[in-house]
Amino acid sequence: MGSTYGKIFRISTFGESHGAGIGVVIDGCPSGLDFDPDFIQSELTRRKPGQSRITTQRREADEFEVLSGVFEGKTTGTPIALIIRNEDQRSKDYAHIAAQFRPSHADYTYQIKYGIRDYRGGGRSSARETAARVAAGAIAKTLLKSLGVTVQAYVSQVGNLKLQQEYGTLDLSQTENNDVRCPDPMMAQQMFDYIDGIRKQGDSVGGVVSCVIKGTPAGWGEPVFDKMHAELGKAMLSINAVKGFEYGSGFDGVALLGSQHNDAFFKDEAGSVHTRTNHSGGIQGGISNGEDIYFRVAFKPVATIMQDQESVDQNGNVAIVQGKGRHDPCVVPRAVPIVEAMAAIVLADFYLRNKASKI
Amino acid sequence: MGSTYGKIFRISTFGESHGAGIGVVIDGCPSGLDFDPDFIQSELTRRKPGQSRITTQRREADEFEVLSGVFEGKTTGTPIALIIRNEDQRSKDYAHIAAQFRPSHADYTYQIKYGIRDYRGGGRSSARETAARVAAGAIAKTLLKSLGVTVQAYVSQVGNLKLQQEYGTLDLSQTENNDVRCPDPMMAQQMFDYIDGIRKQGDSVGGVVSCVIKGTPAGWGEPVFDKMHAELGKAMLSINAVKGFEYGSGFDGVALLGSQHNDAFFKDEAGSVHTRTNHSGGIQGGISNGEDIYFRVAFKPVATIMQDQESVDQNGNVAIVQGKGRHDPCVVPRAVPIVEAMAAIVLADFYLRNKASKI
Amino acid sequence: MGSTYGKIFRISTFGESHGAGIGVVIDGCPSGLDFDPDFIQSELTRRKPGQSRITTQRREADEFEVLSGVFEGKTTGTPIALIIRNEDQRSKDYAHIAAQFRPSHADYTYQIKYGIRDYRGGGRSSARETAARVAAGAIAKTLLKSLGVTVQAYVSQVGNLKLQQEYGTLDLSQTENNDVRCPDPMMAQQMFDYIDGIRKQGDSVGGVVSCVIKGTPAGWGEPVFDKMHAELGKAMLSINAVKGFEYGSGFDGVALLGSQHNDAFFKDEAGSVHTRTNHSGGIQGGISNGEDIYFRVAFKPVATIMQDQESVDQNGNVAIVQGKGRHDPCVVPRAVPIVEAMAAIVLADFYLRNKASKI
Amino acid sequence: MGSTYGKIFRISTFGESHGAGIGVVIDGCPSGLDFDPDFIQSELTRRKPGQSRITTQRREADEFEVLSGVFEGKTTGTPIALIIRNEDQRSKDYAHIAAQFRPSHADYTYQIKYGIRDYRGGGRSSARETAARVAAGAIAKTLLKSLGVTVQAYVSQVGNLKLQQEYGTLDLSQTENNDVRCPDPMMAQQMFDYIDGIRKQGDSVGGVVSCVIKGTPAGWGEPVFDKMHAELGKAMLSINAVKGFEYGSGFDGVALLGSQHNDAFFKDEAGSVHTRTNHSGGIQGGISNGEDIYFRVAFKPVATIMQDQESVDQNGNVAIVQGKGRHDPCVVPRAVPIVEAMAAIVLADFYLRNKASKI
Repeated sequence: MGSTYGKIFRISTFGESHGAGIGVVIDGCPSGLDFDPDFIQSELTRRKPGQSRITTQRREADEFEVLSGVFEGKTTGTPIALIIRNEDQRSKDYAHIAAQFRPSHADYTYQIKYGIRDYRGGGRSSARETAARVAAGAIAKTLLKSLGVTVQAYVSQVGNLKLQQEYGTLDLSQTENNDVRCPDPMMAQQMFDYIDGIRKQGDSVGGVVSCVIKGTPAGWGEPVFDKMHAELGKAMLSINAVKGFEYGSGFDGVALLGSQHNDAFFKDEAGSVHTRTNHSGGIQGGISNGEDIYFRVAFKPVATIMQDQESVDQNGNVAIVQGKGRHDPCVVPRAVPIVEAMAAIVLADFYLRNKASKI
Repeated sequence: MGSTYGKIFRISTFGESHGAGIGVVIDGCPSGLDFDPDFIQSELTRRKPGQSRITTQRREADEFEVLSGVFEGKTTGTPIALIIRNEDQRSKDYAHIAAQFRPSHADYTYQIKYGIRDYRGGGRSSARETAARVAAGAIAKTLLKSLGVTVQAYVSQVGNLKLQQEYGTLDLSQTENNDVRCPDPMMAQQMFDYIDGIRKQGDSVGGVVSCVIKGTPAGWGEPVFDKMHAELGKAMLSINAVKGFEYGSGFDGVALLGSQHNDAFFKDEAGSVHTRTNHSGGIQGGISNGEDIYFRVAFKPVATIMQDQESVDQNGNVAIVQGKGRHDPCVVPRAVPIVEAMAAIVLADFYLRNKASKI
Repeated sequence: MGSTYGKIFRISTFGESHGAGIGVVIDGCPSGLDFDPDFIQSELTRRKPGQSRITTQRREADEFEVLSGVFEGKTTGTPIALIIRNEDQRSKDYAHIAAQFRPSHADYTYQIKYGIRDYRGGGRSSARETAARVAAGAIAKTLLKSLGVTVQAYVSQVGNLKLQQEYGTLDLSQTENNDVRCPDPMMAQQMFDYIDGIRKQGDSVGGVVSCVIKGTPAGWGEPVFDKMHAELGKAMLSINAVKGFEYGSGFDGVALLGSQHNDAFFKDEAGSVHTRTNHSGGIQGGISNGEDIYFRVAFKPVATIMQDQESVDQNGNVAIVQGKGRHDPCVVPRAVPIVEAMAAIVLADFYLRNKASKI
Repeated sequence: MGSTYGKIFRISTFGESHGAGIGVVIDGCPSGLDFDPDFIQSELTRRKPGQSRITTQRREADEFEVLSGVFEGKTTGTPIALIIRNEDQRSKDYAHIAAQFRPSHADYTYQIKYGIRDYRGGGRSSARETAARVAAGAIAKTLLKSLGVTVQAYVSQVGNLKLQQEYGTLDLSQTENNDVRCPDPMMAQQMFDYIDGIRKQGDSVGGVVSCVIKGTPAGWGEPVFDKMHAELGKAMLSINAVKGFEYGSGFDGVALLGSQHNDAFFKDEAGSVHTRTNHSGGIQGGISNGEDIYFRVAFKPVATIMQDQESVDQNGNVAIVQGKGRHDPCVVPRAVPIVEAMAAIVLADFYLRNKASKI
């Protein structure tokens, strides 16, 4: 259980890091959508390892195959299955952890929960699973694009290096121009240097990915439990290494007064209703109000480090987990397309759910 | 859609602020659980308005009636329906907002989404809905208690007044001894005074509720999308006025190095596996590891204030929303039992889901 | 678990035969639908006991109360909760079966499954639960009516008395004119006399309810597991006492050849595509083709009879279950509105699901 | 939507008849189950085309590949993905129906619903999809076998040739000894000859598959909407060409009196509770009572015949659909493993659901 997300635009991922491959089935994608394999591939490439010296050197082509749901370049409304074969399966790299529990990984909890685990590369708990999400997210993005909705994420913090600007003052088109995916080139360079130093120490560091969704019409989202920000939060927190989520004014908003925080409505020259501020982050009562939706996602330092660590083995004996293999010193650059993918999937689902709101 | 939470321990709430009443149906509560109406009532009383001068003066008895699912003092495994009648329905207080959209409420988004809304007191979007959650949460708590799991929340921040201590150094048994529900009596007094001042200004302020879950065995939770912290995050973000969620090291964790953040495993004298630190917040790979689960929830200042505000009406014309009626200057004291309730519901559901993990 | 039906138009029932009452929550009914309490009441009246001397003499007003989801005569898109209080709770009638298992009831299986049961009147397994379905079905019917879709059921068999005519040759407007709800008045009289004789013997007999749905546009339904006839089948089989379901040519169709059974397409004078025959029962590949949808539902003789029966008690000792209290000698007359209600709920759900099919 | 079945043991199929392949993802299979690829293959072989001259001559190896969820011969609790490549994709055989609607196929309804369809071999609506179900069913069977539950289906009727014996008097071990899968060898021969004659005429004929499930403990199943027989009914009706479902006494039971139909309880010599008759088909109130579960499934004559048929094309013009290609003159012999697979999936799901019934 747990490998399915969404109510109508519904994705189910499968696969382990070092098994035959990973994949995703999307059931509920509407028919008639253009299917663009090049775009899916380009999104996968944004996520794949080995992009620069500050990401893991594990080499995977991350090429996908379409098994179903597409005919003559269009979606048919039936389940779309995509698979990505595993290639660089150096399973022997992991032999040393077959009987040990790596600190802050899922080795121990999977072992307790299931009594068995595919220990190779973390198996199902590996971040490799997110490639399947990115592939599905590319299809969701295509659907949203046809509706005028765009999703853009970027790195806004690495360690203590924090972009101070709001998204509105940044040139987000610069995001993909550097290896860190920070839209401010000078900050990007600082972040790169910092991560590279961490890499050389065999250590890792966390960061924050910010995301902006533009063009969402008012009325998407659902009340009560399935509020748009609750689903966005769940989707983001489901990404490996995520420790926190906030939208709109977020944690900083708690210190504001209601008279400062409330977003006054006004009518613009074109006659549209807007808000003067956007502390609501584009969502009120769980439903989009037509303003930009924005949120921030906190990623911990990845658990794999190139240092020896104290642990126990499956028998409960003291063990030293050795630091070897390959690792990502900072996950946020590669997390950018994953955050976008999950956001797109959440929005696509709400778009379809909303169709049933009125008679 | 959107009014149901949970996969096995599944709650569905219904009702509006000023309709006949609100309620909840719990389908999936196991049979044979002691049903304790006094405990449910005491939990409702913790949430109800009018507790002190820093909460809204709206008066509701919040007495519940059991319609089904209980026989001779035990749950029977069939749906448990509870209703709470609305009493203090001063609908005329809301006549002035029938055609106006209150800033940062859900008036506008509901109107756009549904083309109709029960404007009295916010209708379905009112925080009154959370009383139904608290009733269901009391049953979830009873289930968890029988398993040795306890859930305790408290106010850790109001405006800029922030408790600096970690939960482990606090005496959480003090939480209910003051109106703010802050376990540090001196800080509680400061918070009280601050909120009372805000109240006199007719304004509101936000805050943070922290929550600790003790006694969870290792192995609860699910991988990938339904990670325990993802479900906790969704559940918390679904509570009215919540803007952010973090667990374990949270947003602060991003600045740590992996070598600092990783939780080393060790074996205690009794032979149990534990971690030396708990940045993981008791959850690894989405599954509990047996350590304390803890998280923080950010609440914005409530949108209802006793001041006039710029807005538009249903025709898009400029309108001034007048500040009148009753309001909560700070929602967090009453949010404490709601956070606990939702956490208990999430955990109860994972407990039941976990039963199917192994053959 | 098990008390919820539907994916978008989603009903959850609760309540026991002799508890405080029964009810239903409908989440997913679109906003803006006229809410017609008189129609709901009239549907409940069609189902209620005591309508004639061939139905149980248990007296219940079956008056419902609306708790939520309706404002100024319209649905608001939020959950609609309806409750029906229990009145004629002669619990002492059931004291003699507190420790015994009535043959072919659910007493034994509930006891084994849950270790506890509300034995009064069958508790949750009582057909009284279907009143909640009928109330929800009335709302579904109103939705369908606004789309030109009508649902009509009738009794087509009682014991061996079987209507030989196809539905197309019957005057279905006659159905409600007799106590049996058989549209052929002469057959209705025979059935009435037969049931009345069975009643006098303290026995019961089964029957068949046929149902026709007219006006469904082509394209409703889903492929593979959620085929329209699969959902209709599930919905019908979930009604108390149902033993079989067939649609279109049904069991008789197995003896036909493909060349006889296939429904040739043609274009009518108005340019619409139709089929020359309708062995498909209006559904092809699980999706409506625009022809009439029709199906048959088999009901066993109800298990409550006024005769002593061999059984065991909770300790496994031999027991004689005595025939006393009140009973329905034949359930099908009262099952007609239940079959219609469930069919309407299935169709309403497919209508809403279909909105998401195309981009 | 519609391609997922089950609540805990949850299967999602994908794939079209003439695309790259078909497959299934099983999420919710418990960990620690022996994974037996040979058994899965043998089940697929029972379903595959070309087994004898009375089944379609389409040639498919139906070899499957495991992509995930299995490690060192055991299930790991993570999603199990299996794919079966399509091989004999003679798409040109179907070029003639690209623009025509074959009578009693899903061509027309898919076209209306989705505005596009993969017409090759019926695309998603092809019975080839059932191979994925059979693979998943084999895993469910393995799970059930470990619990002492067995599922056995057989052909009990072809056209008007009907086995008169009850299952209890048949030697079901004979089922696989003939091409028809009828446990009575003499009847099997008659059926074979009859089907072979139909085949020579280029026509098709329907039939009935009966199924018996032995060893189910009392207490599996859920009340109200998810009754065990309601889920079995849905699962069976979701199989291509199925027109009806009945369990226990079924449609014949309607003519019995309650005093005849009720299953008296008694205690056997070993002290177990049993029923003297089993008109209930092993299910009371939707929950198993420990007796044999048995049911019958009606299959129509398959729609593909080798004869010219009247139809219309996509423009609504008159068209003649030509009878060419390959066809199954009678689907029931190959349907036997499909019925078993779906029954096993339903039971496996109820087994896992039942774990959460009691505290």
